Amino acid sequence: MSKGDSVVLLDFWASPFCARVKIALEEKNVKHIDNEEDLFGKKSELLLISNPIHQKVPVFLHNGKPVIESAIIVNYIDEVWPENSLLPANAYERAQARFWADFIDKKVFDNGRNIWANNGEEREVGTRDFLEVLKHLEEALGEKDYFGGDTFGYVDIIAIPHSAWFLAYEKLGGFKVEDHSPKISAWIKRSLERESVKKVLPDPEKVYQFVLHFRKMSGLE
Amino acid sequence: MSKGDSVVLLDFWASPFCARVKIALEEKNVKHIDNEEDLFGKKSELLLISNPIHQKVPVFLHNGKPVIESAIIVNYIDEVWPENSLLPANAYERAQARFWADFIDKKVFDNGRNIWANNGEEREVGTRDFLEVLKHLEEALGEKDYFGGDTFGYVDIIAIPHSAWFLAYEKLGGFKVEDHSPKISAWIKRSLERESVKKVLPDPEKVYQFVLHFRKMSGLE
Repeated sequence: MSKGDSVVLLDFWASPFCARVKIALEEKNVKHIDNEEDLFGKKSELLLISNPIHQKVPVFLHNGKPVIESAIIVNYIDEVWPENSLLPANAYERAQARFWADFIDKKVFDNGRNIWANNGEEREVGTRDFLEVLKHLEEALGEKDYFGGDTFGYVDIIAIPHSAWFLAYEKLGGFKVEDHSPKISAWIKRSLERESVKKVLPDPEKVYQFVLHFRKMSGLE
Repeated sequence: MSKGDSVVLLDFWASPFCARVKIALEEKNVKHIDNEEDLFGKKSELLLISNPIHQKVPVFLHNGKPVIESAIIVNYIDEVWPENSLLPANAYERAQARFWADFIDKKVFDNGRNIWANNGEEREVGTRDFLEVLKHLEEALGEKDYFGGDTFGYVDIIAIPHSAWFLAYEKLGGFKVEDHSPKISAWIKRSLERESVKKVLPDPEKVYQFVLHFRKMSGLE
């Protein structure tokens, strides 16, 4: 890549999907311009033009050309800046990594939202489903340090930003991730020691306050 | 790949997701053993062991090792058998192809099901949403012969199997794809002339009868 590359991220501080992109860029030592979107106000012209279908962050603009969907953006970053490879070199392991990224995409945030954007029975169902998802992830991690094995890789980048929301899930769902998934809990601590992750992830307490604010605005509290 | 490769697909004839894998294998001239699953009876031991989390077809077993999720399987096939490349060579175009595959995965089948697995107002909403999805696809295709440009590629393989269900959507939703999306309609006809597609896709009338059978069993008719 030439030094003159323009790299812009349309971002939102609390979004675990945006955090994926920022961690990947840190891992690759790629500088970027960060455009914080006001998701409760007016979406930027650039966001609407770049992602007319979903109108969501993150949008990754590389030399002005938009790439959409966070897992696809991380994959793209890995292909364009191949040093410090994130996806495994082996095709089968790559397919496995993509499977877990897909599983996380389908299950973690939506089940988490079923906890914090609900009350009563719906919240209980959300909590139960979320703990089931954690169980699968605990098994997938097994005795490895990272989902990528010995090194922090693609699936770790996809998964770790969700952990900034876990405090909110725990407080509202009435459980502790550590009690149910000690390996995932240890993996979170391990990953949080990493420079890229430490630098990017928001404070879980701040996310929790954001969630409480949202709950108040939605009449849930 | 050595001649001794074992390639097995856990399949279901009407599944557009299974058809993707079969078309990709045809495009690559890879022979496979096809295990038809009885999805209304007992799932095979091999399916439950290979895909314990989702317990769904397709499962692609390459030398005994399972690959799950149809878009990931097609990507894997393209990486393992690189001749007659399906994904574009350029990283940006690859990201775009993955975006459209993801869009199709999230929108086409589920909105289609909202048409055929409902009655009344819910069906009307499903029909409206489905036509909106078609509109986006019509724009993405534009004046190109295929989503891949001049040649039939990854997004075409992801998308075309859904067309075997369109007759059922049309009959139950009371519309004609051709009236709303003439370019998509022409793309379907063009793609159906391709050997791999012709060989794999089920007769839309048979799929429609299958849908009607399902509707009767579910008390919708």
